[in-house]
Amino acid sequence: MKKSIGTPSLIFPNPVLVVCTYDEGGRANAATLAWGGIASSGPAAVSIAVQPPRYTYEALMKRKAFTVNLAPAKYAAEADYFGLVSGRDADKFAVTGLTAVKSDIVDAPYIGEFPYILECEVTHTLDLGVHTLFIGAIKDAKIDDGATEMWKGLDLITFDAASRDYRLPGASVGKAFEIGNKFKNKL
Amino acid sequence: MKKSIGTPSLIFPNPVLVVCTYDEGGRANAATLAWGGIASSGPAAVSIAVQPPRYTYEALMKRKAFTVNLAPAKYAAEADYFGLVSGRDADKFAVTGLTAVKSDIVDAPYIGEFPYILECEVTHTLDLGVHTLFIGAIKDAKIDDGATEMWKGLDLITFDAASRDYRLPGASVGKAFEIGNKFKNKL
Repeated sequence: MKKSIGTPSLIFPNPVLVVCTYDEGGRANAATLAWGGIASSGPAAVSIAVQPPRYTYEALMKRKAFTVNLAPAKYAAEADYFGLVSGRDADKFAVTGLTAVKSDIVDAPYIGEFPYILECEVTHTLDLGVHTLFIGAIKDAKIDDGATEMWKGLDLITFDAASRDYRLPGASVGKAFEIGNKFKNKL
Repeated sequence: MKKSIGTPSLIFPNPVLVVCTYDEGGRANAATLAWGGIASSGPAAVSIAVQPPRYTYEALMKRKAFTVNLAPAKYAAEADYFGLVSGRDADKFAVTGLTAVKSDIVDAPYIGEFPYILECEVTHTLDLGVHTLFIGAIKDAKIDDGATEMWKGLDLITFDAASRDYRLPGASVGKAFEIGNKFKNKL
């Protein structure tokens, strides 16, 4: 049996998305967002949910560009800080010592120390109430040179919104597009 | 240094979202989608990315309702199967033996055996090319009675799109909204 728990905005798991923008004056900012993900495979696009009062919202509206930087375990505290403080009140790159690298593809910076980044241009906005959903066309993606295989050894973390933990990926329970084959032709 | 890898529709991690709908004739269907997540906290809303040729797309357009069912490790193979086969070609509930429970809140079924579900009504659609993004208002969420604490013991799995594994959550590397405090008042 199941019980109702109202209308929580909880899903599992969440990526740890650090979104970087330039503000109107050209200062780089980084903000960690709870929600976002791939929105389409072609043209490749992401969605990110941003509250209008946030400093990043202003920058997105002005610059129409952003990067998505996935946080590795090594920089979990920095990623957490990026979500705790507004870019209005602090220069978060100066505080953390991380490097804002100017993208040569879009009008936004990315975090030099983060191993996987997406460079995006805003194509749509959808006002949903507390959050506005921004759709960004992925113009390019970059990965650390050292990564011999896609994401191997990048130590990307997840956000468990129920326990409020940043987590490493756990053990595999099976291969996607494979373990379900046993049901094919069953009926 | 970073190298460009083009425009992949890859992010880490992904939830394992099984979306259930009734088709025009009232038959329950379940489809596993690669992408979706929370879109706003108030009113609580989710986004799901669906390709127009999919059977679920037709059902969403007709019924304007769906449920999101998060897959537990125990049913990883069933969840995988739901993404491998079209509802046009198979009665997936009959094949897997899982139970389609009629929601009393929205015009869609949910999976009785899955521990956490969201009942949603379609409020927006956004055509992005290969995928259409559906926004669903979360009208209610249900969790297994046995869950004493939010999600504890539900064994929900994640989808690692790089290695193509379903994974359990791994070890915590720190508490969200806490480990970043050390940077406050630093500059």
